[in-house]
Amino acid sequence: MRATIMYQAGDVRIENIPDAAIRQPTDALIRVARACICGSDLWPYRLKPADGQGQNMGHEAIGVVEAVGHDVRTIGVGDVVIMPFAWSDGRCEFCHEGLQTACVHGGFFGNAEVGGAQAEALRIPQADGTLYRLSTGEDHALMASLLTLSDVMGTGHHAAVVARVGKGRKAAVIGDGAVGLCGVIAAKRMGAEQIIIMGRHPARLALARQFGATDVVSERGAAAIERVRELTGGFGVHSVLECVGTEQAMATSMGIVRAGGAVGRVGVPHYDVVPQAQPMFYRNVLVGGGPAPVRAYIDELLPDVLEGRIQPGLVFDRTVDLDGVPDGYRAMDAREAIKVMVRP
Amino acid sequence: MRATIMYQAGDVRIENIPDAAIRQPTDALIRVARACICGSDLWPYRLKPADGQGQNMGHEAIGVVEAVGHDVRTIGVGDVVIMPFAWSDGRCEFCHEGLQTACVHGGFFGNAEVGGAQAEALRIPQADGTLYRLSTGEDHALMASLLTLSDVMGTGHHAAVVARVGKGRKAAVIGDGAVGLCGVIAAKRMGAEQIIIMGRHPARLALARQFGATDVVSERGAAAIERVRELTGGFGVHSVLECVGTEQAMATSMGIVRAGGAVGRVGVPHYDVVPQAQPMFYRNVLVGGGPAPVRAYIDELLPDVLEGRIQPGLVFDRTVDLDGVPDGYRAMDAREAIKVMVRP
Repeated sequence: MRATIMYQAGDVRIENIPDAAIRQPTDALIRVARACICGSDLWPYRLKPADGQGQNMGHEAIGVVEAVGHDVRTIGVGDVVIMPFAWSDGRCEFCHEGLQTACVHGGFFGNAEVGGAQAEALRIPQADGTLYRLSTGEDHALMASLLTLSDVMGTGHHAAVVARVGKGRKAAVIGDGAVGLCGVIAAKRMGAEQIIIMGRHPARLALARQFGATDVVSERGAAAIERVRELTGGFGVHSVLECVGTEQAMATSMGIVRAGGAVGRVGVPHYDVVPQAQPMFYRNVLVGGGPAPVRAYIDELLPDVLEGRIQPGLVFDRTVDLDGVPDGYRAMDAREAIKVMVRP
Repeated sequence: MRATIMYQAGDVRIENIPDAAIRQPTDALIRVARACICGSDLWPYRLKPADGQGQNMGHEAIGVVEAVGHDVRTIGVGDVVIMPFAWSDGRCEFCHEGLQTACVHGGFFGNAEVGGAQAEALRIPQADGTLYRLSTGEDHALMASLLTLSDVMGTGHHAAVVARVGKGRKAAVIGDGAVGLCGVIAAKRMGAEQIIIMGRHPARLALARQFGATDVVSERGAAAIERVRELTGGFGVHSVLECVGTEQAMATSMGIVRAGGAVGRVGVPHYDVVPQAQPMFYRNVLVGGGPAPVRAYIDELLPDVLEGRIQPGLVFDRTVDLDGVPDGYRAMDAREAIKVMVRP
């Protein structure tokens, strides 16, 4: 079968690899109907060393089940399923608490062990716990929005949950990538009164406005902090959705969060410490977040997608087949595309 | 009047200073009925440089109102009042949200501007917002426990709130000082099923057991982390109450918190960054806390004190008059006393 392998920064290839297959009785095998290129895939696209190791890419998908192992109970052949970016058994105490990304038998897609979703097919460990069965067909009109429930919409929602967005609150979203844009949707959905999007890309900012952003801040660093404070009566925002992951984004978060506020981090952190531990303390600021338990959030978000109240699928502005994946990476890296959908 | 002034590390004196007096129409003047020496007072007792500046000490008190300014409405002469360690106007948006320690017209006791509570009398800014009127007399049997509502009990409660202690949860309290011991009370009160106290002092640990601690860990560093994990099925605790403020205490917090758990910091931090930002992220750990809005918590905690369900006053194991204050500092620093009450 054909799959996407990244060899080093900038070097993404579509290759023939051994067919995905059931290995464990709890596995399912899916044919990938839709996959994506993720903002987090751009980190290795920019930084991966040339170590001779190819990495299987892709961790977001909607698939059609082609086979299941003997112990799979709730998923059957022909089911159309959302594949969250992490697999999870659905039975451990973390799964029961809704933190599937800490499942004791879980893991993350996009590696040699399980393969990646930017491929024709994929083995799904712990299929009963991992996969979310849809009642829609694989060509449903809302497929793009449904696909975001495998990662970016759930991740933006997680940022908003951790940052304690609520009715009448002021929120800022750092980053105008797909996750940031979904963070705007989440903040709006959870009742934020003011939603400040922080970014610089006109098309993305227009989409943010469409999703409910009330203000745009395109400055950076100290100027950005000053601008957010001006927009919020001097105090900053209750909720910061940090959707970038750089040291600068974290410093900005600390500068714009209101006393008693919260920073929800969902950008994969490329820094080693949380800065400003003393001001953070004296101002009673809370910092949390991490890999979103998107599996847990589907129940809550799916009705809003199916009934058209939210349209996260609008973050996809390009669709490619497998051959188009390398250029999809290039386009996202160059910020020509917000998010690329893959139809293998 | 007589008051406590600290000149440098180890140098605490009782001196005659100008009488406290009303300065603003929103002030009250209290005679100090009870005050305390706080664990946080030990930081300057250990570290204050000899800069020639004396510091007025003390930020916890129960007082009797002797005079009020023209604009004070809800507090009157003769009232017995709890004085939280921070003053607050009770009217700004932070006060309305219950974060009085971020009040826009607020501040902290124990400095040249407002004086300290280890004294005969004290000026109270923003008296209507700051003071909490008691219906008890100044010699009530529960005065010791009521006095803890000015700081340590509210602070231990804050740690538990931020660390999201709840029914059936596992909690660890780092530090066996008065705040840590009150943290145990708070964790028990909020329904924690397992409460691990981390400390080394036999009398304090015995009191922790009396307050509801289920386990004691006296190791430090990596051994402490390992021991807590053993006691919690390998995963760590849902809630860490960090009641020390050192870099080591924070590193231990990160080592013992469970994935998806929370660290509530109330020890004044003597470090500049929160460590382990990446493991914290991948494990969805939340870090928060700061100066406790004890003013907000009195409503909730007072009935439990008055009805004897909690006895935080047991943290006081020594009482001194003003002349005894310097030796009180020495005794707390030497860990001979847990917490010293001052009757001026």
